[in-house]
Amino acid sequence: MFLNYSIPFLRPGLSFIPPAHENDLVMACQGAINSLRCGFNKQKKHRSMARNFNFSAGPAMLPTAVIDRAREEMLDWNGSGMSVMEMSHRGKEFVSIAEKAEADLREILAIPDNYKVLFLQGGASSQFAMVPLNLLKDKKNADYLNTGMWSKKAIAEAKRFCDVNLAGDTSEGNFTTVPSQNTLNLNPEAAYAHYTPNETIGGVEFGYIPETGDVPLVADMSSTILSRPIDVSKFGVIYAGAQKNIGPSGLTIVIIREDLIGHPADGIPTMFNYATHSDSGSMYNTPPTYNWYIAGLVFEWIKEQGGLPALAEINRRKATKLYTAIDNSGFYSNPVAENARSWMNIPFTLSDSSLDAAFLSGAAEQGLLTLKGHRSVGGMRASIYNAMPEEGVDILISYMQEFEKKHG
Amino acid sequence: MFLNYSIPFLRPGLSFIPPAHENDLVMACQGAINSLRCGFNKQKKHRSMARNFNFSAGPAMLPTAVIDRAREEMLDWNGSGMSVMEMSHRGKEFVSIAEKAEADLREILAIPDNYKVLFLQGGASSQFAMVPLNLLKDKKNADYLNTGMWSKKAIAEAKRFCDVNLAGDTSEGNFTTVPSQNTLNLNPEAAYAHYTPNETIGGVEFGYIPETGDVPLVADMSSTILSRPIDVSKFGVIYAGAQKNIGPSGLTIVIIREDLIGHPADGIPTMFNYATHSDSGSMYNTPPTYNWYIAGLVFEWIKEQGGLPALAEINRRKATKLYTAIDNSGFYSNPVAENARSWMNIPFTLSDSSLDAAFLSGAAEQGLLTLKGHRSVGGMRASIYNAMPEEGVDILISYMQEFEKKHG
Repeated sequence: MFLNYSIPFLRPGLSFIPPAHENDLVMACQGAINSLRCGFNKQKKHRSMARNFNFSAGPAMLPTAVIDRAREEMLDWNGSGMSVMEMSHRGKEFVSIAEKAEADLREILAIPDNYKVLFLQGGASSQFAMVPLNLLKDKKNADYLNTGMWSKKAIAEAKRFCDVNLAGDTSEGNFTTVPSQNTLNLNPEAAYAHYTPNETIGGVEFGYIPETGDVPLVADMSSTILSRPIDVSKFGVIYAGAQKNIGPSGLTIVIIREDLIGHPADGIPTMFNYATHSDSGSMYNTPPTYNWYIAGLVFEWIKEQGGLPALAEINRRKATKLYTAIDNSGFYSNPVAENARSWMNIPFTLSDSSLDAAFLSGAAEQGLLTLKGHRSVGGMRASIYNAMPEEGVDILISYMQEFEKKHG
Repeated sequence: MFLNYSIPFLRPGLSFIPPAHENDLVMACQGAINSLRCGFNKQKKHRSMARNFNFSAGPAMLPTAVIDRAREEMLDWNGSGMSVMEMSHRGKEFVSIAEKAEADLREILAIPDNYKVLFLQGGASSQFAMVPLNLLKDKKNADYLNTGMWSKKAIAEAKRFCDVNLAGDTSEGNFTTVPSQNTLNLNPEAAYAHYTPNETIGGVEFGYIPETGDVPLVADMSSTILSRPIDVSKFGVIYAGAQKNIGPSGLTIVIIREDLIGHPADGIPTMFNYATHSDSGSMYNTPPTYNWYIAGLVFEWIKEQGGLPALAEINRRKATKLYTAIDNSGFYSNPVAENARSWMNIPFTLSDSSLDAAFLSGAAEQGLLTLKGHRSVGGMRASIYNAMPEEGVDILISYMQEFEKKHG
């Protein structure tokens, strides 16, 4: 009696026999919804009716496929009868989720075996302290590159624990450039050298990895990690808040070379010692389990997209399109030097800032959300992380061109 | 042409015209699923087929109504076109979610105006350090009551920052009692007095709030908060990991009297200073937004249940039933003194521990999950937080009685 009921109830005139099991009906409905959604998407060409394009700098868009799957698995993960939110972090179900997420991330980034991957809480702001408190050892000096608002925050926190040498500093040019390797004033005796490969607020991104010799290189990669392949072996520590390219906020990924673990400063909180988390597989205390799970779904999605080489190609194309539209307009402008332009965060201003409010409200009407620039920069900012579809950028460009025609 | 299509496709022989808008179909399917789920629940009397009873100590069960709602709102919160996971924490949508959650929690717990409510990361394990690092001021001594595994962890961390006076200690009785007020050896000059109202592992709970005079009382309430009304004004600081009675792991609630904020020890990480979070409405950096949102749904659910007085009545009844079944069995036993028995975590052993594995696998077959006791205690543990329906306890008791008949 179990007909293919995902079809009949969509066809006029066919009778329908309700399935005996709730799960079967749920699945049938889900299937029907998905096929209809798919059809609608094709008709609309551009996007699901229900979902907008959200240019938030973070927390930011997640792939719709990831959110769809999270919804499907919400009440009952894999027949366990539990939501992932409800699972003991020490149970076999969650352990399998956690291990797969780490394995997938290691595969995606080709993380060498002598690096640990930690799934922590506290955001990059906690790392601003954890890095000096674990990496200084008996040294008192660290190198920092000052290239924008997030560098500044990392530097301010580091100064509470050590002497900071500004090995590079682009504040004079109002953070619109990146210091080139040959201008860096690196201290070969520094405990480590810290930089911010992508400045989320300024939209400035390094086109190269600084060469620091034997001094461990530390990177706050929050807003650029997973946007393209990187050579992890060039880094001592990579850390990233999840809420841009990894998953929901509340999770921080730390990728750390093993020899840098186990040298905490005296008297630091146990939770601020990398060894605490490294020795326990990031389960010294209860980790942010659901956030970890969603990150794992994002990693699966990245693999399905063809990994980082494929995403890098799309990201490069998305950014190039948008910069070209800005540069060719004469109405919009971006202040960043060409070799320092971010693929992920693209700030731009209108030639007449009194039009900002009209630009934003018109954009929102078209489902283009969260384009307002950071209060310290003004104007607009389009954050176009991995999950922003290329068509979202296309629609934004069309809107910008229309707006310019009308008001420019 | 828009018939009431949530009905026709469930009735054999009726024709069905598919709606023109995806959202309408989604809503129709949702409605149909819900009515069918409801019907199934009534037929089964006990529970949804898809959901098991999960006795995990944490992360633990959440109310099914909360998870259902999270699923419904997953793709598109309140017509915003975004999942809550994707929202900027500074946008009006998330700010409204955050503010409502705090207001509801304040209402539920009747939190006085001179207390701040902080939504943090890092778990109770971070609070073990934050409490001394913020409350010691110029003092060097703190009182701690040692009543189980979690007290011990709090004490071990505190000893790294100050001299700990054990004002109460039940380790000699293997943590099966609670020290009475008149046995407490309190230091009137202590910076604060810390205790653990409910020990998740030992299943030991204070039946009273210790009186500490002018010394601020600090409570790790992770596994008992929101289980009944409490008089917040008796406490200096209440902290709780979310993953028992509040929401998903990755969120820590701190309720702190305002005069205790703003006295951090020198050189602590900025993120470990309560003032950092208090001054910024818990948005100094990106908070765990989705976790905060789910906590807000739980708070709404608590209000719908009639608040803490109503939940306390149910919790008392659930616990009494289970203890009575254990005590009357002659096969199961719980070692905790009667006046110290937890409403939330009920450990028990079988008279023959070689039957443990059979007990657990039989329970799992009936959808009674995560009953294995903590490795330090052995046997079983049933954690029966707010979200565990009373019928879950009833089914557990029936299963225990059947098992005893068969093996006892």
